[in-house]
Amino acid sequence: MQTKITLPESDIPTHWYNVIADMPNPPAPYLGPDGNPVPPEAMLAIFPESLVMQEVSGERWIPIPDPVREALTLWRPSPLYRAHRLERALNTPAKIYYKNEAVSPAGSHKPNTAVAQAYYNQQAGIKRLTTETGAGQWGCSLSLAGQMFGLDIRVYMVKVSYQQKPYRRSMMQTWGAEVFASPTDMTESGRKILAEHPDSEGSLGISISEAVEEAAGREDTNYALGSVLNHVLLHQTIIGEEARKQLAMVDDYPDMVFAPCGGGSNFGGIAFPFFADKAAGKDVKLVAVEPTSCPTLTKGVYTYDYGDTAGLTPLMKMFTLGHDFMPPGIHAGGLRYHGDSALVSQLHQEGLVDAVAVPQLETFDAGVLFARTEGIVPAPESCHAIAATVREARQCAETGEAKTLLFNLSGHGHFDMSSFDRYFAGELEDFDYQESAIQESLRHLPKVG
Amino acid sequence: MQTKITLPESDIPTHWYNVIADMPNPPAPYLGPDGNPVPPEAMLAIFPESLVMQEVSGERWIPIPDPVREALTLWRPSPLYRAHRLERALNTPAKIYYKNEAVSPAGSHKPNTAVAQAYYNQQAGIKRLTTETGAGQWGCSLSLAGQMFGLDIRVYMVKVSYQQKPYRRSMMQTWGAEVFASPTDMTESGRKILAEHPDSEGSLGISISEAVEEAAGREDTNYALGSVLNHVLLHQTIIGEEARKQLAMVDDYPDMVFAPCGGGSNFGGIAFPFFADKAAGKDVKLVAVEPTSCPTLTKGVYTYDYGDTAGLTPLMKMFTLGHDFMPPGIHAGGLRYHGDSALVSQLHQEGLVDAVAVPQLETFDAGVLFARTEGIVPAPESCHAIAATVREARQCAETGEAKTLLFNLSGHGHFDMSSFDRYFAGELEDFDYQESAIQESLRHLPKVG
Repeated sequence: MQTKITLPESDIPTHWYNVIADMPNPPAPYLGPDGNPVPPEAMLAIFPESLVMQEVSGERWIPIPDPVREALTLWRPSPLYRAHRLERALNTPAKIYYKNEAVSPAGSHKPNTAVAQAYYNQQAGIKRLTTETGAGQWGCSLSLAGQMFGLDIRVYMVKVSYQQKPYRRSMMQTWGAEVFASPTDMTESGRKILAEHPDSEGSLGISISEAVEEAAGREDTNYALGSVLNHVLLHQTIIGEEARKQLAMVDDYPDMVFAPCGGGSNFGGIAFPFFADKAAGKDVKLVAVEPTSCPTLTKGVYTYDYGDTAGLTPLMKMFTLGHDFMPPGIHAGGLRYHGDSALVSQLHQEGLVDAVAVPQLETFDAGVLFARTEGIVPAPESCHAIAATVREARQCAETGEAKTLLFNLSGHGHFDMSSFDRYFAGELEDFDYQESAIQESLRHLPKVG
Repeated sequence: MQTKITLPESDIPTHWYNVIADMPNPPAPYLGPDGNPVPPEAMLAIFPESLVMQEVSGERWIPIPDPVREALTLWRPSPLYRAHRLERALNTPAKIYYKNEAVSPAGSHKPNTAVAQAYYNQQAGIKRLTTETGAGQWGCSLSLAGQMFGLDIRVYMVKVSYQQKPYRRSMMQTWGAEVFASPTDMTESGRKILAEHPDSEGSLGISISEAVEEAAGREDTNYALGSVLNHVLLHQTIIGEEARKQLAMVDDYPDMVFAPCGGGSNFGGIAFPFFADKAAGKDVKLVAVEPTSCPTLTKGVYTYDYGDTAGLTPLMKMFTLGHDFMPPGIHAGGLRYHGDSALVSQLHQEGLVDAVAVPQLETFDAGVLFARTEGIVPAPESCHAIAATVREARQCAETGEAKTLLFNLSGHGHFDMSSFDRYFAGELEDFDYQESAIQESLRHLPKVG
């Protein structure tokens, strides 16, 4: 009865999979405020050319440079687990597998793209990267990658997470990065927010504005984003590629694939390589799991909006709650984002990707059940995928269906123990769905053209 | 250029290696205060018979029960790494390998014995285990194992660590355990210490006294120790067994093996399977690394002493600083132990095991270098092995020798970030060697017979 399915180092994928090649329709273009498509060159102020080319590429397979693959060897291939103990606890006929991305040094899937982005920026002569971070997973990942490729890293960390997770900050500093609680008074975007909301807990949207603003203003500095953009999701597809191969090793294939979905890279990373099969006629359900308090795919509108709060990014066609929507301070900081990947959004709009929203307490219930069966203490973001998988497995227990379920264990919760403390103390809330706040922020959607 | 050497799940060892079979002399017996050997039956008050039999066995290979091997699959076999990036940073001709035991759910090598001990106790009908923990690694490991085998766990955590590492406590609670800062007023041993030293920061010796006292007084409750005893070191030998096999896969063999040494299970775990080769004539140096502030092997005396502070354990012949020696509050809580494994001590006395002591700042220097090259943030205990390996690799850079060095990365530092904060803030001390304190505690060595 095999538990852990491992691949040798030589099986680290050699190419990233580009889902655009298999989408039924080309992606909606990024637009400027004038309503005209943004030319790729416009992105060169903050990204190296190689990443801009990946952002717009239609090629199905994009080769992974050797120095990136070498960096990935520090934790990849990641193991795929059959969750025997969780299955027994649920008394379900379903087979549950999880891909363990918590094994990276930063503790999540985020370094997969961080090392690629650091490499391409270093190749382009860039000395310094700015970025945002929510729960701190992405900030840690870029700090690690910056250290590996000799780049200085400056991180704008969402204030509520900065306070909840001081040791994520310590970890970034251990890898040599600078970290600030955002909103700061160091950027115009930050100062504007502080003037209006002096007690702002911050959000991913605000932190992105701050990091982009700084990068746009400096020649030697670029910006790196941990999710949302096409090239970020591209770099994460090695998760699904490996998982697909590992399942084949045990002669299995998922009926359903679950992943937490904030900006979309976690979900796209594991789901897109299975989408390739789906596009070829295979019956597989791809389920993005989000918090009920920040229900982008399940309650947002599909339209053009900014990726950040201040409106510095191009307009992207996506599911959004409005770029100035301020999500409640749930503990899954990485899922507190008003929008979503344009690729995930378009596929959801076309009915090819499913979405489900889960309330905070249910995610911690599931996370603790997982810790007590499979051992690993999961990140609050990952608890969302676990909760949706547990729901489905319980459904199978009722119907008797022996479905094969796969989820992405995107990260561990070692830096989230204060959240578990609050859960055990009965202090966590199920934030209500903020109908009026969402309606309010949707009134601020940009007019296009 | 291979980085990570992995074994399939089927290669989890089927037997533990018992070093006693290859020692030149039989181990010195445990003695009672009257100077007579303690009969194995005397240990049955706090240990199940199966573990007592392992404690005194002379068999070279002891089979690992299937349920224990199944539990081990959650994280084993653990990967062996070639530290290419660290080697380049040191510009050394030495080849550096490390066994990564940080991949277990509890974050260290400790679950290797925790699952075995939980299993044997459950088989013996025990409902509840008490234990001590220093840095929290062992407490977490037993909490995890207790959860897996349906046992209640009560942990006496050394007070200084309880304060430095609150999230280790949260993690134990996530796995369902009860945790107390030791010394407590719940046991006679604890009350006695508090009466004499109301501000006591605690020590492993004190916590052991508390846990043993409680277990000895209850029928349904046994005690579990995370290090020192023969059966604990036995369970850890799967580390060295796997490492030996992994090195053979890349046609290599270590000239030197390094591991942190507190109670000895970390060191014995990786070193003993190589001792088997040494006993057969192979030239391999086994180096136990300890803190200069708690220099048991390098500055202690080899004599009979108690394993705990209150004198509840049998007398063991070992290197000791005196059972009431109070080590300074260094951040490597797992190495704050006055004594050492009797097996490691005897082999050191016979010149078959080497020892070196490293000051606190050097260990953090090495740990940060490791984090910035290999990515993983190491536990302060593991930083000791890294520091000694780095010393040797730098020596090789001077002499030009291309030695093969292997160390045990016994755990990650995710719960030790406050220690790294203090290191970066320049607040960490190199505690002086406490000559007078050691001389004082050595005056309290028990009279035997």
